[in-house]
Amino acid sequence: MTFPVVGMVGGGQLARMTHEAGIPLGIRFKLLSDTPQDSAAQVVSDVVIGDYRDLDTLRAFARGCDVITFDHEHVPTEHLRALEADGIPVRPGPDALVHAQDKGVMRAKLTQIGAPCPRHRVVSDPADAAAFAAETGGFPVILKTVRGGYDGKGVWFVRDEKDAEEPFKAGVPVLAEEKVEFVRELAANIVRSPHGQAVAYPVVESRQVDGVCDTVIAPAPGLSEELAGQAQALALRIAKELGVVGHLAVELFETADGRILVNELAMRPHNSGHWTQDGAITSQFANHVRAVLDLPLGDPRPRERWTVMANVLGGDYPDMYQAYLHCMARDPQLKIHMYGKDVKPGRKVGHVNTYGDDLDDVLERARHAAGYLRGTITE
Amino acid sequence: MTFPVVGMVGGGQLARMTHEAGIPLGIRFKLLSDTPQDSAAQVVSDVVIGDYRDLDTLRAFARGCDVITFDHEHVPTEHLRALEADGIPVRPGPDALVHAQDKGVMRAKLTQIGAPCPRHRVVSDPADAAAFAAETGGFPVILKTVRGGYDGKGVWFVRDEKDAEEPFKAGVPVLAEEKVEFVRELAANIVRSPHGQAVAYPVVESRQVDGVCDTVIAPAPGLSEELAGQAQALALRIAKELGVVGHLAVELFETADGRILVNELAMRPHNSGHWTQDGAITSQFANHVRAVLDLPLGDPRPRERWTVMANVLGGDYPDMYQAYLHCMARDPQLKIHMYGKDVKPGRKVGHVNTYGDDLDDVLERARHAAGYLRGTITE
Repeated sequence: MTFPVVGMVGGGQLARMTHEAGIPLGIRFKLLSDTPQDSAAQVVSDVVIGDYRDLDTLRAFARGCDVITFDHEHVPTEHLRALEADGIPVRPGPDALVHAQDKGVMRAKLTQIGAPCPRHRVVSDPADAAAFAAETGGFPVILKTVRGGYDGKGVWFVRDEKDAEEPFKAGVPVLAEEKVEFVRELAANIVRSPHGQAVAYPVVESRQVDGVCDTVIAPAPGLSEELAGQAQALALRIAKELGVVGHLAVELFETADGRILVNELAMRPHNSGHWTQDGAITSQFANHVRAVLDLPLGDPRPRERWTVMANVLGGDYPDMYQAYLHCMARDPQLKIHMYGKDVKPGRKVGHVNTYGDDLDDVLERARHAAGYLRGTITE
Repeated sequence: MTFPVVGMVGGGQLARMTHEAGIPLGIRFKLLSDTPQDSAAQVVSDVVIGDYRDLDTLRAFARGCDVITFDHEHVPTEHLRALEADGIPVRPGPDALVHAQDKGVMRAKLTQIGAPCPRHRVVSDPADAAAFAAETGGFPVILKTVRGGYDGKGVWFVRDEKDAEEPFKAGVPVLAEEKVEFVRELAANIVRSPHGQAVAYPVVESRQVDGVCDTVIAPAPGLSEELAGQAQALALRIAKELGVVGHLAVELFETADGRILVNELAMRPHNSGHWTQDGAITSQFANHVRAVLDLPLGDPRPRERWTVMANVLGGDYPDMYQAYLHCMARDPQLKIHMYGKDVKPGRKVGHVNTYGDDLDDVLERARHAAGYLRGTITE
């Protein structure tokens, strides 16, 4: 058999679910994981334990892989260039991935290609942040370290110059962005292959609680066809201009005056696309695998009128398995996706998907299950 | 975390696809496989290589498992009883499984509970087979070794007494059955849990070529609601009377005069249920896992008007991966499920699923893809 080997760097839940999606295709999956206990390492047969920040480790891992892809965006750009120089296809490649690694580079490039963004600039100290605020209508503003943030970490909501001291303590460049008055957050997810084929998933609404994604509704309720089309076209254009291969999530703000602005980019399967596992003809994970192998992409259309994803966060007690009894008996159509991670309060340890014709019912079922698994709902 | 460990005996494709279905539930999967190259061993992290016919191997494997289930029906009954005596839940248990292991025991039990069967009896030699033929309207008759057959192996279509010599050569008891004049083959698939919950999938039509399943259509086209209900009720009753836990496939003959007769039983996920991976709300594999863990079962209803499964057999050239390019580009909705097995002519190495509203189209797409992957269709 000549089935290829996909090398996945990172052992988190995205790697776990990508492996799951790759099994039916008969491809071989090789994992570079920090520890044998990582989410994906629990379910993959061919696992290398090692540090992705070490080039020798990466090089040894890449031998025997036909292509390298990623569970996260933290592999140093220069290591990716070294792998490419060794002749290993890296997808997405370093020139694309840097835009998901460095928010300063991302904003500069998006501005260059005319993609709508919040007003922004890199600021040098708290006084410069205050100057940026004055230029853009005053505090509050958003400060972000250009590297290393996720799920609300590395992001500060800053009300005055004193508040602005904290972000500079890490010694990483800081990007200032205007506080956008948005009505909701959207995500436009697309998948692009090396030969330039691309598919666009329906634009979804993403609801955050405490800076962490809580629920995703597919498609975004009440979104005009025009704005949905604009968002999809924008994501496809960004993917092409940046040379993205694989799944690209473009997180967006929808403003009260009917505009969309780019919030963040992620170049890997993304939380806002988890609904596709049960709600789309081809999941984001299956299409990511197909893209990095340069296979023709699968149909991204929804299978249902509404699909809702709700994240399961860790709660006060660790035994989520017992909660299955109630959740599965209450809703025989419920789709549970757990990551095999230890439960810690507030940590994403899984998600559920529900689907159907009645959005209120679909939302209620997802929220009930996620809350019951977390322990915040007990009846 | 208190997530259970499911021990799977046998490393074939059913184990592979059960592992795939178990990943989202966060359960731990432990595999006993003949070789590291077996279909499931390629994708499972926790694999023990050993011989399931050896009790010490089974016992060592079972330590640390919360429940044992099976990819095949070949584990000796006495070994299963020994594991049960050790306190390990075995699902399905030996008292149920013997009916899928021994066709003589199966026919005796089904007759006892009044399940409709072809006329049959165990025969002692070719002359006795001829006597059975004379009793039931003459040759041809079907002879089967009571143990060890699958996919047409261990089954003979016998036209005269001389033909009847071959089946006795293995030294295994031989069962004679009348040649049923059936119009088609159906399968009634159900899943039953230890606490007695059961779900019934739609009754499907199974089309064989050269004694091997070629395509499955869900639901069986033109089947009357009455006969479908009879088939489901029969499968549920057999499961209850035999104490089956997990997935039960009841393969049936539909006769010209509108009756159904039981052909074979399989107590594990079954080829006639592969369509459920993409066509039902809950797949047979997910429900098998839920049943052996005594979790509430998932909704077995179809998601689509028609789903077709076509088996992919090995052909003359071994490189099926190159064929993905054509198949995926031609049909972006196609669902490919490959097993990671070496290609040998006639060997089942995968299957495809298609679904939609137009049965002719759904059938054509499945047959084209299966034929193209095999190499019998080249355009």
